[in-house]
Amino acid sequence: MSDNDKLQAMRHSLAHITAAAVQRLWPQAKFGVGPVVKDGFYYDIDIDKVTISTDDFAKIEAEMRKIIEEKQAFERSEKQIDDAIGWAKEAKQPYKEELLNDLKRSGTTVASDLNADELGTIADGEGVVENVSFYTNGDFTDLCRGPHVGSTSEVGAFKLLRVAGAYWRGKETNPQMQRLYGVAFETKEQLDHYLELQEQAKQRDHRKLGKELDLFVTSELVGSGLPLFTPRGTVLREELTEYSNDLRENYGFEKVWIPHITKTALYEKSGHQAKFGDELFLVKSQETSDEFVLKPMNCPHHTRIYASKPRSYRDLPVRYLETTTVYRDEKTGELGGLSRVRSITQDDSHVFCRGDQIEQEIANLLAAASEIYKAVGMDLRVRLSYRDDSDGYLGDPALWKTAQDQLRNAVEANGLKYFEVEGEAAFYGPKIDFMATDALEREHQLATVQLDFVQPDRFELEYISDDGSRQTPVMIHCALLGSVERFLSVYIEHTGGKFPVWLAPEQIRVIQVKDSPELDAFVDKLVALAKENKVRIVVDRTNESVGKKIRAAEVLKVPYSVVIGEKELETGKLTPRVRKDLAVEGRQDEAYELEKLISSIANEVRSRAQNSSI
Amino acid sequence: MSDNDKLQAMRHSLAHITAAAVQRLWPQAKFGVGPVVKDGFYYDIDIDKVTISTDDFAKIEAEMRKIIEEKQAFERSEKQIDDAIGWAKEAKQPYKEELLNDLKRSGTTVASDLNADELGTIADGEGVVENVSFYTNGDFTDLCRGPHVGSTSEVGAFKLLRVAGAYWRGKETNPQMQRLYGVAFETKEQLDHYLELQEQAKQRDHRKLGKELDLFVTSELVGSGLPLFTPRGTVLREELTEYSNDLRENYGFEKVWIPHITKTALYEKSGHQAKFGDELFLVKSQETSDEFVLKPMNCPHHTRIYASKPRSYRDLPVRYLETTTVYRDEKTGELGGLSRVRSITQDDSHVFCRGDQIEQEIANLLAAASEIYKAVGMDLRVRLSYRDDSDGYLGDPALWKTAQDQLRNAVEANGLKYFEVEGEAAFYGPKIDFMATDALEREHQLATVQLDFVQPDRFELEYISDDGSRQTPVMIHCALLGSVERFLSVYIEHTGGKFPVWLAPEQIRVIQVKDSPELDAFVDKLVALAKENKVRIVVDRTNESVGKKIRAAEVLKVPYSVVIGEKELETGKLTPRVRKDLAVEGRQDEAYELEKLISSIANEVRSRAQNSSI
Repeated sequence: MSDNDKLQAMRHSLAHITAAAVQRLWPQAKFGVGPVVKDGFYYDIDIDKVTISTDDFAKIEAEMRKIIEEKQAFERSEKQIDDAIGWAKEAKQPYKEELLNDLKRSGTTVASDLNADELGTIADGEGVVENVSFYTNGDFTDLCRGPHVGSTSEVGAFKLLRVAGAYWRGKETNPQMQRLYGVAFETKEQLDHYLELQEQAKQRDHRKLGKELDLFVTSELVGSGLPLFTPRGTVLREELTEYSNDLRENYGFEKVWIPHITKTALYEKSGHQAKFGDELFLVKSQETSDEFVLKPMNCPHHTRIYASKPRSYRDLPVRYLETTTVYRDEKTGELGGLSRVRSITQDDSHVFCRGDQIEQEIANLLAAASEIYKAVGMDLRVRLSYRDDSDGYLGDPALWKTAQDQLRNAVEANGLKYFEVEGEAAFYGPKIDFMATDALEREHQLATVQLDFVQPDRFELEYISDDGSRQTPVMIHCALLGSVERFLSVYIEHTGGKFPVWLAPEQIRVIQVKDSPELDAFVDKLVALAKENKVRIVVDRTNESVGKKIRAAEVLKVPYSVVIGEKELETGKLTPRVRKDLAVEGRQDEAYELEKLISSIANEVRSRAQNSSI
Repeated sequence: MSDNDKLQAMRHSLAHITAAAVQRLWPQAKFGVGPVVKDGFYYDIDIDKVTISTDDFAKIEAEMRKIIEEKQAFERSEKQIDDAIGWAKEAKQPYKEELLNDLKRSGTTVASDLNADELGTIADGEGVVENVSFYTNGDFTDLCRGPHVGSTSEVGAFKLLRVAGAYWRGKETNPQMQRLYGVAFETKEQLDHYLELQEQAKQRDHRKLGKELDLFVTSELVGSGLPLFTPRGTVLREELTEYSNDLRENYGFEKVWIPHITKTALYEKSGHQAKFGDELFLVKSQETSDEFVLKPMNCPHHTRIYASKPRSYRDLPVRYLETTTVYRDEKTGELGGLSRVRSITQDDSHVFCRGDQIEQEIANLLAAASEIYKAVGMDLRVRLSYRDDSDGYLGDPALWKTAQDQLRNAVEANGLKYFEVEGEAAFYGPKIDFMATDALEREHQLATVQLDFVQPDRFELEYISDDGSRQTPVMIHCALLGSVERFLSVYIEHTGGKFPVWLAPEQIRVIQVKDSPELDAFVDKLVALAKENKVRIVVDRTNESVGKKIRAAEVLKVPYSVVIGEKELETGKLTPRVRKDLAVEGRQDEAYELEKLISSIANEVRSRAQNSSI
């Protein structure tokens, strides 16, 4: 049994133990299904009029611990299907009875009602069902496919986490049950680590921090999924996309600009209309009969610029870059914070190149991606998605082969960690996905590099090759951050809002201890110096005490703050307070001339340093 | 008679002379109306099956000159309305007969069929018409209000310019006539100057230059009024808006970011829905029942950011800045090039301030506007639009009074040329329009500064004043360029595509005389130097001759080009070719070290110089 299989069996066994404990406490309880899910398990339970609350968790967990201490063996048995139905009737378990009847009738597992990442609990595979298996521990018996651990003492560390309403088999017309969730790991240390990360995730929730740090707001009048960015949030957007653009401009990318609406004809030509037509926002003119859509991607527009003049093999690669917004018609229930929005800003780019130029172009983009993720302090690994031998892929198979080789070569040349997956390519070309791991050990797919053999053909793009013949270029789609909004949702939680100096919306805060013409002049001088050096400075002009002002700067996680009073005026020197995570040991409490302080910060900004040099 | 009235009379008299000449050439001609228009006049004519073409202009002009040489007096006479109708019948002038019948029936002038800038030709004002006036010169008599010059010899210099089809009285169901246009000025010099400007305008048409200089393209698949900007055009957009933003950031403006769609609820609240609801692009979700619109302005969104937290009088002014696109549902027939587009990018900004801060804020914006228009080499004057005593204005009259005074003070303090117009304010506040004169002596209204006493109220915006009471801020809307697209349409024609160095999409072009490893290395060094100094450099890598490459750089109006061959390699020095309009006398033909050349250009870019220092 692999480690993972063992963990699954432990979690599955804990689902049974949870149900057994509930049955001891509420003998009338009726049970639905109890699968393993990410990090733990749940069980769907119906106890008539009893509502389980978090207040009951201690009681249930105590009962579970008793069962664990009793070291009950998990014993497997089989029943013929009709006997099993009889058992369910007798045990007054109508949900189990329904499942068994379905199983008898259709011969398929009921697990298809469950999500893909949940394990079915009753029967494997398809076909005629004759026998079904049961597992018993102590006086609790459950219809179950297994496997389980040997005894209830082998289930590791666990904790009940929450309880939520859930319709039986996910249908709104069915009775509502209570879904009792638990998390479980092999060791107490792992569980504690998990719970600590969960707690941190709650503290770092980007919607919470977005409000506390004054980064973005939503408005009922504007609508859900349509956040508006305050000056502070806009600094983050601008700094990140400017960096992303600069990195690519170094490799010869040039900015272009396209409108956000288009006639649907463009997507009929590209083929997107047939595939994604239902997911588009439709735009109607009232003055004319014109019908438009909001663009859901930028590539078809960019092909129109490529195609606007003749291209020679000497002109390639042509590289376009644009930070622009696309629109996706998401269901309202799926919208929240910045993770899922309806207007999505991409740091998009498209290369039009010859087949023999793919490797170099990919290498450039990988180098750019590596640099930006290093600057934001996130680990990267890449997934290479190739075609398999099935029929669904368009484009010349020989081109696929050399292109996939070029992708791998470029990834290896850049020294990136990678893994390869066959059959995961898009129908129009192989791709590279960047997986970034955040401070809470969560992996996110953000940037992507995608080859495209199909759109150039559909749009009849061409270049004149060195032998004078007309050839079709290859397209490479790439966004380094991906969606700016989604990147920010991850990045705000990754940093907990403690942005590095170069990204911090406010880099230095001034706290003046009292009003006086001399102090005012001193502060004005500092502000002017900062602005000259493009350091973002704010003077706290509220009517609060110095202590409260220091606290306010901490809440906003400002990298540096300086208190300015008589002493500073006298000595002409400032001793900055450095945000803890940035501080390098032994460097604190030093006093700086204004010029030196500002130029040090300006240097950190320019070099996108991770730590303070002050 | 003022100079302008005299010129009007001359042009009006020329309309009669045109008709008289046509009547001599084609006695069957029937006449419609012949008003004065901007720069000249026209006459609507129907000659049955005869089609006048530009080939006939010499013949008509010769006949006109005869009439002029005959020094015919313009003689006024009056007829009772029924006698006038009898005259028209007898003269076989059915159009005049129709006009007279209408005049008799309705008592109003028919001039209401004409555009606002055209003068009616028959009768003044309203009321019962008893007598109508006629003017006769030689054997030609026309129904006419006058006035005219004394004789046909006093009409100055003229030229027939074009002929176009025009429906009688502008209705498609009426017969089509031929509208014969002429231009006229007091002197031959003025006429020649006008014709020269016309010719230049044709050469400089921004649609023509947009193509020649590879600045923007359109696509049938995307739709009309939705231009796409190439890398070269995007440089212009970016440089201009960055400058416009920088100027305001110096005054404490901060960038924000808003989505391009919103629920209509936002415009119901702002009041725009009631006023402009028909002109909005409607956006429909297919996944939900949500209905959105594409934003036609940004102020309501920006109020949502202001309102997202409490504000104190110490926090004001709050200044938001955003280059963002709005959408106007224009009729397809009205779209062309960049002058009138459906997606309009504004360099928009909004100040939220106290009443006593208006003057300083306006002064800042005027200074920024003065600087940017100086940098693009256009003359500015401003129009101050105030309220009058009528009822249509919202907001406290005392606030209007002090605000208007503050506007005038700020304009005077900035030393701007200005004129004041009462009754031209918007209902929600007084405003300043910037009128910029281009190289073809055309005046364009581009930037605008607009006070707003109404939206802050509608959106319940507030701040806590120093006495603790809740107060409503004033809003100031301002765009320095206005619409980026429209600004470019004017600016491309203003410069004829000869952009100053700081704006030029390509600043220096390299022409390498032949391929050799040594020359390649030399060119690479120059390119690297340029990029380091953020100078936009292009190497012409086509297979053409040096002569053709030089010509290509000229067509693209590149400020500098350098030819690099053995001599340059040997001496290590380059002699740049400077675009003629930039060149300062006595500075040509100097040879520069690479470093010196690039640093000189970089300096010109930084200082936004109008002329070359090379």
